[in-house]
Amino acid sequence: MKQYLRSSVLVIGGAEDKVHGKEILQRFWHCAGGTDAIIAIIPSASREPTIIGDRYVSIFSEMGAKDLKVLDVRDRIQGEDKDYQEYVEKCTAIFMTGGDQLRLCGLLADTPLMERIRQRVKLGEVTLGGTSAGAAVMGHHMIAGGSSGESPNRALVDMAMGLGIIPEVIVDQHFHNRNRMARLLSALSNHPERLGIGIDEDTCAVFQKDEYIEVIGKGTVTIVDGQAMSYTNHGKVAAEDPLALHNLRLHILGHGDRYNRKTHQPMAGIVE
Amino acid sequence: MKQYLRSSVLVIGGAEDKVHGKEILQRFWHCAGGTDAIIAIIPSASREPTIIGDRYVSIFSEMGAKDLKVLDVRDRIQGEDKDYQEYVEKCTAIFMTGGDQLRLCGLLADTPLMERIRQRVKLGEVTLGGTSAGAAVMGHHMIAGGSSGESPNRALVDMAMGLGIIPEVIVDQHFHNRNRMARLLSALSNHPERLGIGIDEDTCAVFQKDEYIEVIGKGTVTIVDGQAMSYTNHGKVAAEDPLALHNLRLHILGHGDRYNRKTHQPMAGIVE
Repeated sequence: MKQYLRSSVLVIGGAEDKVHGKEILQRFWHCAGGTDAIIAIIPSASREPTIIGDRYVSIFSEMGAKDLKVLDVRDRIQGEDKDYQEYVEKCTAIFMTGGDQLRLCGLLADTPLMERIRQRVKLGEVTLGGTSAGAAVMGHHMIAGGSSGESPNRALVDMAMGLGIIPEVIVDQHFHNRNRMARLLSALSNHPERLGIGIDEDTCAVFQKDEYIEVIGKGTVTIVDGQAMSYTNHGKVAAEDPLALHNLRLHILGHGDRYNRKTHQPMAGIVE
Repeated sequence: MKQYLRSSVLVIGGAEDKVHGKEILQRFWHCAGGTDAIIAIIPSASREPTIIGDRYVSIFSEMGAKDLKVLDVRDRIQGEDKDYQEYVEKCTAIFMTGGDQLRLCGLLADTPLMERIRQRVKLGEVTLGGTSAGAAVMGHHMIAGGSSGESPNRALVDMAMGLGIIPEVIVDQHFHNRNRMARLLSALSNHPERLGIGIDEDTCAVFQKDEYIEVIGKGTVTIVDGQAMSYTNHGKVAAEDPLALHNLRLHILGHGDRYNRKTHQPMAGIVE
């Protein structure tokens, strides 16, 4: 069931294995072309972009990537940098690291660099990967922060605009690890037409064009589908009041499981 | 929509308000008959049964209950105590406090006292209330303990036999407060035919005969319905491996919302 499609978008829940089997990063490298891979690394979510950028350079370099470059954008003006733009034209893949998703969007949203990346991803010409903050930015609506340990309520989650790579999803990462179900539900209450996707650490939802999501890695991908939601009190209660949401569909997907984005149906993978 | 039915079973998520409006305990008192209420309090889940028993005696006594007695069962042999059995015959309501659900079941399961309580509840002759541990014991299957912060997996939850008052439910309490969605899902993976019910603190699922569940209190009642579950890997993976569960229905119910146990459909309450 392994498909190394160039057009894959790898949405990673953070803390992916960088030392042992490296299943997720290996998949990214394979999609990117393996020994022909030309990979741009964007560490802009992080306040330590040099360290984190170099870390991924080492990993993909050891795997045998053909060429690598860190697009170390620390100022929006660099979103017009000619060198960076040229690299985005010739690369086969782009990887966005973890850090702060608001920082990442603040630096890159609507820059020529990001617009071209989005276009090439949409055309299926390049592989895109993002982990943690780099995963959070994938949707049109983005969870910027929030809390846990409360009944779902609007004040439990901070929303912002994402990069809109896969507009219809609202991604949450480190999902079960940081007990984020209540905040994802809180986010969805205002956008039930979006698909809520919670990705555990060292776990990846591989988006393949408009068709399937495939799960790889160690944990689960949680899908909360509000398509058939019959009721929410979202617009009627105060921000701290508990939210009601009726008739959601919930899928916990494990390794190898798939989800059909058109039919909204999950399919079981083969347990090896 | 307030119904003070004697046959109500009040399943409370713990930490119910005992000082201010006391909505949940007031409802219990009303169902029990108000100033005609004769209430048996079972503090056996607690290792401080005297303190906690007396606390509820004070509360219901201040409300104006007609008579109160603590059935302070600390040994299974007391499950045959004639005084206690007589009180169970004449009481209008029984309240089970918090503590440790394994202790409560260990002391009371299958004793003549508990059998008679179960029978009178089933006949709709008395009101039953249980908070925290006293709520956990309601189903046939009981969550005895567990953890959070992980992908759902079998090792995340300890299961035991409950008192079987409402056999078809698996109750989890302090639900969103202690981030227990993953453990409830883990419990359900082995019993998808049961209804998973997560009750937040100071929140109550009021069961009315075989028909409705009504939500009162400050938080939410989460219902996870596995009736249409199309797949789980439960029997195929190791205890620590992540669980997959496909096609669950999820409802987050707020104050006044109801759930029809026959049709498995939620109904919105009126937002006041």
